[in-house]
Amino acid sequence: MTSVALCTINSSARSIARLCQASRSAHGTADFHSFVARYSTLRKCAFLPGGKWSFIRAATRQMSQGSPGRISLGRYGKGVFLAAGAAAVTGVLTAGVSHFQRAEMATKVSKVEEEKGDIRERCKSFMSVPVTDIKVLEQRKDAMCTRMEMLIMETQAAFCRALEEVDGGTFRVDRWSRKEGGGGISCVMQDGKVFEKAGVNVSVVFGNLTEEAAKQMRSRGKVLKGKDGKLPFCAMGVSSVIHPKNPHIPTVHFNYRYFEIEEADGTKQWWFGGGTDLTPVYIDLEDAAHFHKTLKKACDKHHPKYYPDFKKWCDNYFYIRHRAETRGIGGIFFDDLDSPNQEEVFNFVKSCAKTVVPCYLPIVYKHLNDSFTPEEKDWQQVRRGRYVEFNLVYDRGVKFGLATPGSRIESILMSLPLTARWEYMHEPTKGSKEAEMLEVLRNPKEWI
Amino acid sequence: MTSVALCTINSSARSIARLCQASRSAHGTADFHSFVARYSTLRKCAFLPGGKWSFIRAATRQMSQGSPGRISLGRYGKGVFLAAGAAAVTGVLTAGVSHFQRAEMATKVSKVEEEKGDIRERCKSFMSVPVTDIKVLEQRKDAMCTRMEMLIMETQAAFCRALEEVDGGTFRVDRWSRKEGGGGISCVMQDGKVFEKAGVNVSVVFGNLTEEAAKQMRSRGKVLKGKDGKLPFCAMGVSSVIHPKNPHIPTVHFNYRYFEIEEADGTKQWWFGGGTDLTPVYIDLEDAAHFHKTLKKACDKHHPKYYPDFKKWCDNYFYIRHRAETRGIGGIFFDDLDSPNQEEVFNFVKSCAKTVVPCYLPIVYKHLNDSFTPEEKDWQQVRRGRYVEFNLVYDRGVKFGLATPGSRIESILMSLPLTARWEYMHEPTKGSKEAEMLEVLRNPKEWI
Repeated sequence: MTSVALCTINSSARSIARLCQASRSAHGTADFHSFVARYSTLRKCAFLPGGKWSFIRAATRQMSQGSPGRISLGRYGKGVFLAAGAAAVTGVLTAGVSHFQRAEMATKVSKVEEEKGDIRERCKSFMSVPVTDIKVLEQRKDAMCTRMEMLIMETQAAFCRALEEVDGGTFRVDRWSRKEGGGGISCVMQDGKVFEKAGVNVSVVFGNLTEEAAKQMRSRGKVLKGKDGKLPFCAMGVSSVIHPKNPHIPTVHFNYRYFEIEEADGTKQWWFGGGTDLTPVYIDLEDAAHFHKTLKKACDKHHPKYYPDFKKWCDNYFYIRHRAETRGIGGIFFDDLDSPNQEEVFNFVKSCAKTVVPCYLPIVYKHLNDSFTPEEKDWQQVRRGRYVEFNLVYDRGVKFGLATPGSRIESILMSLPLTARWEYMHEPTKGSKEAEMLEVLRNPKEWI
Repeated sequence: MTSVALCTINSSARSIARLCQASRSAHGTADFHSFVARYSTLRKCAFLPGGKWSFIRAATRQMSQGSPGRISLGRYGKGVFLAAGAAAVTGVLTAGVSHFQRAEMATKVSKVEEEKGDIRERCKSFMSVPVTDIKVLEQRKDAMCTRMEMLIMETQAAFCRALEEVDGGTFRVDRWSRKEGGGGISCVMQDGKVFEKAGVNVSVVFGNLTEEAAKQMRSRGKVLKGKDGKLPFCAMGVSSVIHPKNPHIPTVHFNYRYFEIEEADGTKQWWFGGGTDLTPVYIDLEDAAHFHKTLKKACDKHHPKYYPDFKKWCDNYFYIRHRAETRGIGGIFFDDLDSPNQEEVFNFVKSCAKTVVPCYLPIVYKHLNDSFTPEEKDWQQVRRGRYVEFNLVYDRGVKFGLATPGSRIESILMSLPLTARWEYMHEPTKGSKEAEMLEVLRNPKEWI
């Protein structure tokens, strides 16, 4: 078997190593190998001192055949393998059985190890200083709202840097505040080399909700009793939609969020929600299987029902009713998750957040240089139109945001593509690749 | 004063002559002249035997200066001035005082003259055979539902043919039926020379409504009592959205509709709704004044409060709340109109429907050959994005249609542009033409 260690993992690099390793552990050795075998070049991720991800091309086909891989360093792999000064968001991707085993073990680390490191130090790797004052975060460092804010900031940074690495462009970072309390950090890269529009948004908002608004925030619509009808709340999340230019690279969306509401009697209601889903323009069975397997593995570590339940929830949620088709090929989606306990749900959300890069980036790299025709671009644009339809007509987050005074509209609508198209009576030719895609959207499949 | 009669108006051509004359009578002689004076070329409309409009370029600047205009025939004006065999939708545009006077008189014709002609004969000029069987229309030819169906079919044909004339393209005509009762005729021209997407839709639907749905159909939400909770209804209308390619030609939208609902005790509730509004990409004060004056004139013939009230209603209705801007520069909009009596409201709706061509076509011809930069095209695309936002998030018709099982989605969403764009944090440069447009959308103006 292959055993190509690109570097030694030291303890400070472990958490991000897991981020990448999750991808491979998601398949088990054999599956991962068969997945990468088809990839002509797989770039491996490392973290550079400046807080940037580095992807190193390796001779994966050789690796997957079991012979010692000869490492071909791509333009990113100039001998900088180890992260320094960014303990929480740093790491390397390694190959070989010993590392898969290590990845398996790594997913079972304790909270202490996962979140260790000085808060101020961890903040240095973020796209911006966090919404909450660092001193406040330090004062209540064990509170869930602090731990979640750190997680969403880390997720934003890790994802943005992975995308910058592949695109060559730079995210515009807007830090904004909300009059009523809190604010956010919106990172957008527009009209890049690879990405038509990439948005990664963090928001941390707090204030008082009416009982009616509180009910609406929760998908189960639980009635909450406020003091004089008011409910102090805190809501935070990271959300992202990435629209690539090449129609062979799918759009990805993820969102992980946490709510806390204090009732009149002082009890705190809390819940988590989130999900990651893929919207390809053309079906690629290998990509679909990789994406779903990576998610399944993250779910399976926490509960065997999570993946099947949340996969179904995702297909049901991202459904364009008036078209009778799903938005994409799904992934996972969940809301109102508040059991078995806060610690375990948080760990699950953390696992999901850390699978975003390994779910998506290998697919981006695989199709980076795929050629495409104007007709394929048109079909992408038509599918973008459907994306807009879903987001504006059905998406609960968008609807809630647009209807909420004081919302930052640009951050809510950054999920819309740069360009979209609506053709009257568009129907792909029977037997075409476009018809094949539509068939899948009309009849959601099991991918693994 | 100029007096250039392009042809003699015979009685069979009178109704469509009014269609064009409404434009000039809308301004009074002086206003009309000052309007056309600025137009380097104004094409005049005539109706060709095949049911096509013909626009003839005339030396309008000379005309407005009071000297006899020298007529320069454009590519459309090849000596075919008179309609034949299309009695109801046929006509010419003439110039000169005597014709303005004639136009004034023509607006006061009786119902008998307006709708005269054999139903079967009138149907020949339509884009398709009507939704309702011609025999049924003949049997109940004095019923409002027949008169309205004839009006919307005539409006569709007149508008489609005027657009085909200017574009050179041909509308695709889809006649569709609705399982629950009724159907429609959707006419769409896509990716033409002048129009990116032009949709003109007629629908005539009937069946039974629940009391709740009946309430929703009416903006005032009046409670209607059905037999066993069911209310037999009939709803019909013509609606259109035209998105031109050139950013200097504005988008236009109009919709005229009629509802009839039968309550448990046999009484019939009926009401009309409608409106015409303009969405330019750049402000042109002259176009705005022409558009609004033409509408005001049509309104003033029926009630002095109609224009100011329905202008305000339009600004309020076509408002993108989350952007704090209107969709365009408005026009008129009304709903639930059921007084003073059915005959008078119908006559008002008819006047409005007949102003569509004279409201819009002169503006199209004026800007037909305007050059534009890629930046101007981009700004158009950004505005198109806002159009999509309004239609999918706020438009009552679209929302009702998307939520109604059995709706013909392609006809509802044909109002969406072929292409649109969403740029993150797009804000025009201070003092630019784009900023000027935005200023108007943020602070609706009086145009006349």
